[in-house]
Amino acid sequence: MKKIGIGKIALQLALSDEDQEAEMIEKYEAIGYALYKGKAGSMDSQKIFAAIETAAMRQDLIRENYREEHALYHCTMEAFNGYCRGQIDLGNVLRSTGLVFSIVRGHLISEDKSTGEWLAITLYGQIGSPRQGFEHEAVGMGIQPV
Amino acid sequence: MKKIGIGKIALQLALSDEDQEAEMIEKYEAIGYALYKGKAGSMDSQKIFAAIETAAMRQDLIRENYREEHALYHCTMEAFNGYCRGQIDLGNVLRSTGLVFSIVRGHLISEDKSTGEWLAITLYGQIGSPRQGFEHEAVGMGIQPV
Amino acid sequence: MKKIGIGKIALQLALSDEDQEAEMIEKYEAIGYALYKGKAGSMDSQKIFAAIETAAMRQDLIRENYREEHALYHCTMEAFNGYCRGQIDLGNVLRSTGLVFSIVRGHLISEDKSTGEWLAITLYGQIGSPRQGFEHEAVGMGIQPV
Amino acid sequence: MKKIGIGKIALQLALSDEDQEAEMIEKYEAIGYALYKGKAGSMDSQKIFAAIETAAMRQDLIRENYREEHALYHCTMEAFNGYCRGQIDLGNVLRSTGLVFSIVRGHLISEDKSTGEWLAITLYGQIGSPRQGFEHEAVGMGIQPV
Amino acid sequence: MKKIGIGKIALQLALSDEDQEAEMIEKYEAIGYALYKGKAGSMDSQKIFAAIETAAMRQDLIRENYREEHALYHCTMEAFNGYCRGQIDLGNVLRSTGLVFSIVRGHLISEDKSTGEWLAITLYGQIGSPRQGFEHEAVGMGIQPV
Amino acid sequence: MKKIGIGKIALQLALSDEDQEAEMIEKYEAIGYALYKGKAGSMDSQKIFAAIETAAMRQDLIRENYREEHALYHCTMEAFNGYCRGQIDLGNVLRSTGLVFSIVRGHLISEDKSTGEWLAITLYGQIGSPRQGFEHEAVGMGIQPV
Repeated sequence: MKKIGIGKIALQLALSDEDQEAEMIEKYEAIGYALYKGKAGSMDSQKIFAAIETAAMRQDLIRENYREEHALYHCTMEAFNGYCRGQIDLGNVLRSTGLVFSIVRGHLISEDKSTGEWLAITLYGQIGSPRQGFEHEAVGMGIQPV
Repeated sequence: MKKIGIGKIALQLALSDEDQEAEMIEKYEAIGYALYKGKAGSMDSQKIFAAIETAAMRQDLIRENYREEHALYHCTMEAFNGYCRGQIDLGNVLRSTGLVFSIVRGHLISEDKSTGEWLAITLYGQIGSPRQGFEHEAVGMGIQPV
Repeated sequence: MKKIGIGKIALQLALSDEDQEAEMIEKYEAIGYALYKGKAGSMDSQKIFAAIETAAMRQDLIRENYREEHALYHCTMEAFNGYCRGQIDLGNVLRSTGLVFSIVRGHLISEDKSTGEWLAITLYGQIGSPRQGFEHEAVGMGIQPV
Repeated sequence: MKKIGIGKIALQLALSDEDQEAEMIEKYEAIGYALYKGKAGSMDSQKIFAAIETAAMRQDLIRENYREEHALYHCTMEAFNGYCRGQIDLGNVLRSTGLVFSIVRGHLISEDKSTGEWLAITLYGQIGSPRQGFEHEAVGMGIQPV
Repeated sequence: MKKIGIGKIALQLALSDEDQEAEMIEKYEAIGYALYKGKAGSMDSQKIFAAIETAAMRQDLIRENYREEHALYHCTMEAFNGYCRGQIDLGNVLRSTGLVFSIVRGHLISEDKSTGEWLAITLYGQIGSPRQGFEHEAVGMGIQPV
Repeated sequence: MKKIGIGKIALQLALSDEDQEAEMIEKYEAIGYALYKGKAGSMDSQKIFAAIETAAMRQDLIRENYREEHALYHCTMEAFNGYCRGQIDLGNVLRSTGLVFSIVRGHLISEDKSTGEWLAITLYGQIGSPRQGFEHEAVGMGIQPV
């Protein structure tokens, strides 16, 4: 297998359809990664943060301590910052989003154990007016050591 | 073929290896998209903007007028903003990047001609210290009507 | 008539008193511009965005499609960003505003048809503490092709 | 004469042609304001700040002390922030500007001496690609007590 | 007594325990400073601004006019901006804070009357998840002439 | 000894005079912290980042790997972000700084080993016009697990 970065894994998981998702999870779990893909949608940015945190904890992607929760939070903030492209806000600037998020935990680069464990979070979805069809795609990613 | 958004096409092109790239270009040009993938690397953010603008003009992805150049500029700014996740800067905050960029022009959603032509720009690469191996992946995307 | 930019028309309309407003509208409609001036006031930034969008749609300043709504949204965001001078927020940072907004649609520069149609939005008003007299003027403008 | 805010005076001065400028200066100096209008153009944002500071000092619009220089600096920063609409940068994001700036010193509202002296700075000009004709108008304003 | 800046006084007051606080207030009031230390905690950033403004007015640290209220507001905004380190927001990005704030009014540098009166506001506290123990320290400071 | 946070240690070290500095270093090294205090001054923000990184490496406050360098970089970015209060820039917005920085490594809260090792960086100094005496104090702090 070619070397791949944790960010690319997270991006491809976020972009995957159902068949690819199952295949990716199997493939990368076999070489030591933990992967999860979920959905969130809201005009309230707090709910996007909460959905990701809840998923990460329930799926045991982070351990129940502040170091790991801190890494998860900064990952989410960076991903959401990139997703919003300037204004870290949804409803306050009259926009809404529906997105999928992927969380991947493992080495920064596959088969390279020297850098320890990292966390990558990707957001991919539609952002725009709270009106059907008046929206376009957006993406954001955050990466932190964990 | 399933419907696909212009942003997903641009993201997959940026993530593609050489074989996939040729295949994607053929597949999406057949249904009316124009696609390009290039490389840029610098500690000077101006050079990232210049590389994308030069490529878009040389490849005829935008017409030689201000309306289209304006759309390209705002696309690039949004993509770079997302890539940087907060500080729209490279060398001033002592970091460097090497990235691939993809530019895609066509319908917002494949086979839906109602929304006219749009431009999607994706940046995907490594950002970090100007020191080999001290860097991680980043992604950014901008979408504008053209 | 001397050449004038769409932004200057929008600024002067926002600064105009009632007599000047009627005169400006007549003068610039005669050479192909569409102009509108409205009012909005709130501690809730979402309401400023909504007031401008509603006015633009009711007054037929934009067509009922996503391309034009997207241009209007980005215009409003740029204008509000400039108006707020750093923090894109009102009530969350304990401030309120009462403002007039102008929307102008037409050529980027009068009598120059080569650049097609653009949209300019100007905000001009008072921003400050939600307490009478504890506020000062602010201005913001956004310009996008439409 | 109708009451007018210091910001509106500064905006109108920045938008004025030569005849109007002379008339405005005479009119508002008669009721206690000091006004100045200058030009600056660069891809280097530092030069915009320097041009305004130099003009304000040479024209005695601020006294030679840190309190007043601090007010001038924050006024300029707010005006430039609004002018740039998000990224406080020119050349680093491959754009250039040519602008006029106005500096006005006096009461916050004409004929109302209760609030003491304030400073208003307005920037109005063209921002865009460093290529002739590939640019549009922008405006920014800052107001501070002095 | 060695010369000291108003910012250092505000920082030390914010960091002081009860005994040090009483001692500091006595020491610096003797040389013409006014000092106050209060507490605020919330997920709602508006409440932090309100707590500081209310305290400054009740303690007569600012006079009841707009010039001084404006200086106080900008001081608070700068301090909160530094405290948040990028996103000027609490609950919208799913975080909460409990902090002490200090307000100091007096010369920019002790025993140097040439620069007139200034205001320094320091925030020091814990910021993080709204969950006990999942938070770390933060600091922010704003300084304005008054 | 009372419990103390790593941020407060870093802040007090940055504010300390020479005698206090020596005393603090002894006191906190005895309970497992590593402390360092240095100086940096420039109109070029890159040099502030470089001075802190060089010091941290020479003083062995971080290990020679990317995980720790990444934590150091994000700490520095957060501290500089807070220090600048909005615009992450020095010379581009015509200002300069002279500052002391402190780097502290150890537990988040003294005597509480449950959260592992963290890094706190504090910047304290003078920021302002590149002209003697036209400047005031600023502070910024970043905290990251390491």
